Amino acid sequence: VIQRPPALEKLLEILRSLPNVGPKMSERIAFHILRMPEDKIRDFIDILEASHAEVRPCPICGHWDDSSPCRVCQDPSRDKTVLCVVENSQDVQAVSRIKNFKGIYHVLGGTLSPLEGIGPDDLQITSLLKRLETEPIQEVILATNSDMEGESTAQYISKQILSVSAKIRGNGRPEGIKITRPAQGLPSGGELEYMDELTLTHAFDGRREFDRN
Amino acid sequence: VIQRPPALEKLLEILRSLPNVGPKMSERIAFHILRMPEDKIRDFIDILEASHAEVRPCPICGHWDDSSPCRVCQDPSRDKTVLCVVENSQDVQAVSRIKNFKGIYHVLGGTLSPLEGIGPDDLQITSLLKRLETEPIQEVILATNSDMEGESTAQYISKQILSVSAKIRGNGRPEGIKITRPAQGLPSGGELEYMDELTLTHAFDGRREFDRN
Repeated sequence: VIQRPPALEKLLEILRSLPNVGPKMSERIAFHILRMPEDKIRDFIDILEASHAEVRPCPICGHWDDSSPCRVCQDPSRDKTVLCVVENSQDVQAVSRIKNFKGIYHVLGGTLSPLEGIGPDDLQITSLLKRLETEPIQEVILATNSDMEGESTAQYISKQILSVSAKIRGNGRPEGIKITRPAQGLPSGGELEYMDELTLTHAFDGRREFDRN
Repeated sequence: VIQRPPALEKLLEILRSLPNVGPKMSERIAFHILRMPEDKIRDFIDILEASHAEVRPCPICGHWDDSSPCRVCQDPSRDKTVLCVVENSQDVQAVSRIKNFKGIYHVLGGTLSPLEGIGPDDLQITSLLKRLETEPIQEVILATNSDMEGESTAQYISKQILSVSAKIRGNGRPEGIKITRPAQGLPSGGELEYMDELTLTHAFDGRREFDRN
């Protein structure tokens, strides 16, 4: 086997450390980068530096933004009584596409995952509970993914909120905080024959009376 | 929709321009990069700069290396009479794993592809023909991929070599240059029932007498 230049080996190694980049893909990306003209690689490096320096998690909600607090937390038009808890910043982006939701957010930074050694202290749960004590939040939407990790993370947070609510009640804060979770069921355009059992079960359990108008 | 920081938008854009990186993957990689600690991102940038500056195509064979000519062209132990033509530098690496091959290489930099507008002038074909005139090459192995583009590129180059050989013959060079192509057939471990028709056809057309010893 022909020895490779150490600089190329290092490039391949760091590319392989990126999420979902395997050995074959790291090679393709590496040679793409090597072939970039001088000004393009300069751009690439400038963008890496600028984004890494400017974009940081919001100290209040954890959403990644270039202003601090983030533009969502600073937006006076938002409904500060409804808080949507999500796993990561990309989810904030996704939820923000829902026209009917104009509340605020809290980014956990992941989900509980005993297998990967991620416990409650690795997520932004304490800061969430603090916010419930100090901010006028009336409803918490637990919008973690509808997979096992997301489900059990929602369960865990819900219990924590209930115990905090009990404390808050003594401090004169409004009695209960409403805890909700997005509906589960058939995705839009979903064909019954291709749905898994769990999705069908949720869809049937959550069925509603048909609106005949 | 919440507006994203311009620096993040730019990062996503440049990541999407990398081969095989779609929108979802660009997001995952972007947040992975944003989360890198300061020293890690510094490393990443240093490696990008160093590899881009140091690793360049060899002026003789086109293989990407940090010495010029590359370490293969400089290696005195190689058989300079057998030249293996490949599509790209990764293929040099692959062929170099074959214990029985100790020849030299020529990297085309791609394949002919009328659909993508890649013609003979976009590949290192002229430089290949030049080498045949000046170097003591006796056999050219056309090791382009065994797909349509690789096949037609091999065809094209083979014709070019034949016409050059005719010229060379007049100049007193050894009569013919042997042109070969790697065998086509069943891959090692390949199960017949999963092989496509073309692979089976090649395997049967190229069948050899069974060695009973």
